[in-house]
Amino acid sequence: MRSVTIGILGLGQVGAGTLRLLQERRAAIEARLGAALTVRRIAVRDPGRAREVEVAADLLTTDPRAVIADPSIDVIVELIGGIEPARALILAALRAGKHVVTANKAVLAECGAEIFAEAAARGRMVYFEGSVAGGIPILRSLREGLASDRIEAIAGIVNGTSNYILDAMTRSGASFADALRAAQDAGFAEADPTLDVGGGDAAHKLALLALVAFGARVDPHAIPTEGITGISALDIRAAGELGYLIKSLALAHDTPEGPCLRVHPTLVPRAHVLAGVAGAYNAVQVESRALGRSLYYGRGAGMMPTAVAVVSDLLEVARDLIAGVAPTTPPAVRAVAPASTAALEHEHYLCVHVPNLPGVLGRVATCLGRHGVSIARMIQDRAGAGPVPMIILTEVVAERAMQAALTELSTSPDLAAPPTRIRLLPAALL
Amino acid sequence: MRSVTIGILGLGQVGAGTLRLLQERRAAIEARLGAALTVRRIAVRDPGRAREVEVAADLLTTDPRAVIADPSIDVIVELIGGIEPARALILAALRAGKHVVTANKAVLAECGAEIFAEAAARGRMVYFEGSVAGGIPILRSLREGLASDRIEAIAGIVNGTSNYILDAMTRSGASFADALRAAQDAGFAEADPTLDVGGGDAAHKLALLALVAFGARVDPHAIPTEGITGISALDIRAAGELGYLIKSLALAHDTPEGPCLRVHPTLVPRAHVLAGVAGAYNAVQVESRALGRSLYYGRGAGMMPTAVAVVSDLLEVARDLIAGVAPTTPPAVRAVAPASTAALEHEHYLCVHVPNLPGVLGRVATCLGRHGVSIARMIQDRAGAGPVPMIILTEVVAERAMQAALTELSTSPDLAAPPTRIRLLPAALL
Repeated sequence: MRSVTIGILGLGQVGAGTLRLLQERRAAIEARLGAALTVRRIAVRDPGRAREVEVAADLLTTDPRAVIADPSIDVIVELIGGIEPARALILAALRAGKHVVTANKAVLAECGAEIFAEAAARGRMVYFEGSVAGGIPILRSLREGLASDRIEAIAGIVNGTSNYILDAMTRSGASFADALRAAQDAGFAEADPTLDVGGGDAAHKLALLALVAFGARVDPHAIPTEGITGISALDIRAAGELGYLIKSLALAHDTPEGPCLRVHPTLVPRAHVLAGVAGAYNAVQVESRALGRSLYYGRGAGMMPTAVAVVSDLLEVARDLIAGVAPTTPPAVRAVAPASTAALEHEHYLCVHVPNLPGVLGRVATCLGRHGVSIARMIQDRAGAGPVPMIILTEVVAERAMQAALTELSTSPDLAAPPTRIRLLPAALL
Repeated sequence: MRSVTIGILGLGQVGAGTLRLLQERRAAIEARLGAALTVRRIAVRDPGRAREVEVAADLLTTDPRAVIADPSIDVIVELIGGIEPARALILAALRAGKHVVTANKAVLAECGAEIFAEAAARGRMVYFEGSVAGGIPILRSLREGLASDRIEAIAGIVNGTSNYILDAMTRSGASFADALRAAQDAGFAEADPTLDVGGGDAAHKLALLALVAFGARVDPHAIPTEGITGISALDIRAAGELGYLIKSLALAHDTPEGPCLRVHPTLVPRAHVLAGVAGAYNAVQVESRALGRSLYYGRGAGMMPTAVAVVSDLLEVARDLIAGVAPTTPPAVRAVAPASTAALEHEHYLCVHVPNLPGVLGRVATCLGRHGVSIARMIQDRAGAGPVPMIILTEVVAERAMQAALTELSTSPDLAAPPTRIRLLPAALL
């Protein structure tokens, strides 16, 4: 039987899962492919370490360059993560004529220009299904299932850690800090959670979604990104009373000026399909011209879910290699500055802490009104002597106007703390 | 530019949508494929009819056999629907050496043995993404995204008409008959709705899901199938009070004796992701060994959604034709009798109408207890002089025992009408 040969760089969780899947599903894979997927070499940091998968000692090396240089290997699977040395090794693999499969969103989002240009120049493939939403076949669905459709908008819960924390806050009433600590104890948040709860990881994934959906490469640092660190137990409770859940969403829609991208906490109506995405699950809602709304849901991270995505890419590369087909063109490397968010329109949730005194509500409302922000609904809990929270839902207003109102409000002597503002899910995604 | 040539049989809603998508997305398709998808001929019943798409008169013919016989055509798209003449035309197309794309679940579920055998014998492809859940790329996700995974169970809302009616009953409190009439008026139900509300259409789709997920061909008539015609406004309301929505589900799980398949109304907890699937939407929940739970959601029918699926299949066939790749083996034609449902275990919802008299509850409970059916919860509305509804939630009990209990209950002189029983979503799918 023909064999497609694989070198793996990195044998952490996802590497071990990939190896296990290739072992356990060997017969099924060979029946489907008409060929074997054979792992030739695996680069690891510590060959002596205990692993969650059986691996022959003679497959292991500490030298990733030796794996890349091995002329008997067809495909390099990069599962080291992070920027370096992943970037240098992926480029070296492409230069050595290997196809590359990776689950590394950071390196592709940050260094995609270089990597996809190298792949195109060498006529090699770079597949990365595992880099967005773990095992959910979202990139394949966009690329093939919706191939003939025009993607108009995307709303994704793509960071499992943030969703897990917000979900825990919703269920238990805990503060962000307590929920984060519990998530860390349960293994759902890293010791340094910045990239997850700050929104950076979601911005990386959003950049890759935009690459596949719109054929546009966007610098992830140019994506307006707000994390969930400012969400309080009060915000969660007040949103709940108003009929909403707070979700961290990665949002994109196509505009004549290029894709408009942003990551921020969002109030989602309780009956909306995204509101049902609990715990560490991920989901990507897609709005496309012909199909309308579709949604893809599943485990966004973890050893075996991500391994399923990696092996699905391996099967695709292998099929093309066996058929002798020219590689699929890598996604467009056309660099695009993301469209401005200044004209975006949302309803907003606002929480301001103000003293329980006559005239304060009027001054807050007047300030908002001056910027064209109309109040749709207000809740104020009159109890308490010190500053009390005032919850406001606004009518639809442009981002630009809201920003101006928030800036002025922040300078008001009435406010004990800067206002919290959370956007509602835009009408087009309801 | 190379051209892959297409003949279309049938220019109803989906045919017109397919043609429109091929026209409107022509540039995008050509850029992606590196080739053109060119429609050569279209067989219609009435060439003079007004259509929702522009079509050159000289493409039209009333003779489908002429389209099939055209040696310049690579792929036949069958969009006539139903069994005959679709079956005969698909077989003729395969015998003429054409690849076939179809959205016809009925003909594939009923005549799949013959069709896939013919395709295998001729080395031709039969693609049918549009036949299950419209534009949702569920078959492609099972076949490719989850290619290396082992599918363990499937729960699908795959009949949009039934879901629309149940959803309308839930929102408005209407009876089944009134909700059906409203659905017919709104164009969401056929004049003869039997195949939809009786569950037959869902059984067809379930047979095709089992084909792709388990590689097993099952006679759709061997699938235990219950429609939604027996669901009353009272059932919907009582389920709601207990925290559930009633959904019509197509269910499958793998067993050592082959796949166990069934279609029936099901109580789904309100917070479950399937409960959020409203209106005419479809969703398929998949449980697989490595990925765990995933879900695919979108429009299950309609002109443009189904056209997206048809064109995704066309693109896949075209890619292989251009590459000169041998066709993908059609799904296994291994015929399997579905595993018995007798040992399946569920909690159940029961509704019996009994006279409001002393001793009746005791007799009903005793009858259930005799068959090992324990009552977990009971609601009885004491108002009313005639028979009053008694709602019972049971503990988990095997189908076999429940059937025996229902048979005995039905003969009880206490009951004014046969009991209604609705299964709860099994624990593995919660």
